[in-house]
Amino acid sequence: MMKFYDKLHSRSNKVKSLLCVGLDPEIEKIPLVIQKEQNPLFEFCKHIVDATHTDVAAYKPNIAFFERYGSSGIKEFELLLEYLKKNYPGVPIIADVKRGDLANTAKEYAKYYFGSLCVDSITVSPYMGCDSLEPFLEYENSFLFALCLTSNKGAEDFQKLVVKEGNIRVYDEVASAVYRLNKDYPDRVGIVVGATYPGELKLLRKKFPDMVFLIPGFGAQGGELLDTISISGLNSVVNSSRSIIYHSNQDDFAEKALQKVKEINQEMQVLFR
Amino acid sequence: MMKFYDKLHSRSNKVKSLLCVGLDPEIEKIPLVIQKEQNPLFEFCKHIVDATHTDVAAYKPNIAFFERYGSSGIKEFELLLEYLKKNYPGVPIIADVKRGDLANTAKEYAKYYFGSLCVDSITVSPYMGCDSLEPFLEYENSFLFALCLTSNKGAEDFQKLVVKEGNIRVYDEVASAVYRLNKDYPDRVGIVVGATYPGELKLLRKKFPDMVFLIPGFGAQGGELLDTISISGLNSVVNSSRSIIYHSNQDDFAEKALQKVKEINQEMQVLFR
Repeated sequence: MMKFYDKLHSRSNKVKSLLCVGLDPEIEKIPLVIQKEQNPLFEFCKHIVDATHTDVAAYKPNIAFFERYGSSGIKEFELLLEYLKKNYPGVPIIADVKRGDLANTAKEYAKYYFGSLCVDSITVSPYMGCDSLEPFLEYENSFLFALCLTSNKGAEDFQKLVVKEGNIRVYDEVASAVYRLNKDYPDRVGIVVGATYPGELKLLRKKFPDMVFLIPGFGAQGGELLDTISISGLNSVVNSSRSIIYHSNQDDFAEKALQKVKEINQEMQVLFR
Repeated sequence: MMKFYDKLHSRSNKVKSLLCVGLDPEIEKIPLVIQKEQNPLFEFCKHIVDATHTDVAAYKPNIAFFERYGSSGIKEFELLLEYLKKNYPGVPIIADVKRGDLANTAKEYAKYYFGSLCVDSITVSPYMGCDSLEPFLEYENSFLFALCLTSNKGAEDFQKLVVKEGNIRVYDEVASAVYRLNKDYPDRVGIVVGATYPGELKLLRKKFPDMVFLIPGFGAQGGELLDTISISGLNSVVNSSRSIIYHSNQDDFAEKALQKVKEINQEMQVLFR
């Protein structure tokens, strides 16, 4: 199995894009004809990936949209991962799960995501500290994106608190801890930084040029694509979900998703010239 | 449906105990005869709850131990919750899931836990801020325990950082935010504070006498029970998992679990005299 870091860079170079498509299937938003299928969440995502796989750098299914339906939803999540790995093995998968628990418990999550599902990477919540992240890193070739500065308003509540020592903020401490983890596990941990905070993104990128940034928050959430990529550069993966997968709610949704992907990629060409 | 806050207090008064039993089934640790059953995780927990339900204040199944097996594990998690609600409706359930995501995504988790499973409460990770918690509170009678100061060593990494303004720590800010949430949603949010940090527990209790504390970390993790309960008082639920459910790994595991529960309850009698 190829390392996520290499797989992502090779892929984004090949398709000349940093675009990650977020797979967040909501039953109310998907066309009626798909709603009626046996595994509607899976079928919806399958159509999206079949249409767009030639042009994207990565896929990011968010498990919440599957977990909403409990065990049957998780079954569809598993179908989707199997399908992606079998049909598009060159496209890295970021399972957006934001898990985080005591080491003793985190190892159970690690067994599922990296032992059974064998995804390329997952997102994790860092609140419980570095010992809660390490069980995931014990899987060779696993990759983690730790929440650092998220794209929502609530990022102000705790992430942006100014820490007394060093006059930096909580999210800076998370980024520094991730930097240190990469010393023990080279190119194995990145951070999530919202496109909605371009000033902070710029400072983080200056401080950590070699760290992979997963950047959500452009499109539906209001971040500017060109600003984002010119600040963050090639060592990034830029996510959009709703603006792509729900670009049309008619039967042409997959085709329209590809059209949106191509438009976004077009804007990104400045980086690949 | 009774509010969690009232249900918990009525229950702990009735059984004269603050003890929550953590249901963390690990296949390698459960007796062979149960391992061979069709739904071994469910069956193991079922035996534990059948033996102990008369003497406990709450149950806390941790979803990680089920999620490890993906959709089939989640099916067993659902069987367990159905069984608990049907057979022991007076015993509150804390689903230990530590979820946390953007509001738009958190509402999907909320639909599952409070809309479909109808658990009494869940644990949540506060890193993404208050707007990530609110979708859960839109369900009437839902209750949240936000991670505040966790019982592990990693709590030092971010939770204990000193915040410049006010000279308090990140976890104090979380507790204060939870306090403010309770103004809008009375008696609907509590915090998780590890028994491994008795000094900090004491200060938090002094500051927030009316907030429900979920206290893990005594027993296997090293916290002292008597210290913990004398500091935190009746507005608490004290969790132990491994020291109870794996007290014996033989066929008498359920009986031995009850014995351990009774021992712990005995120690707690000082509070109920």
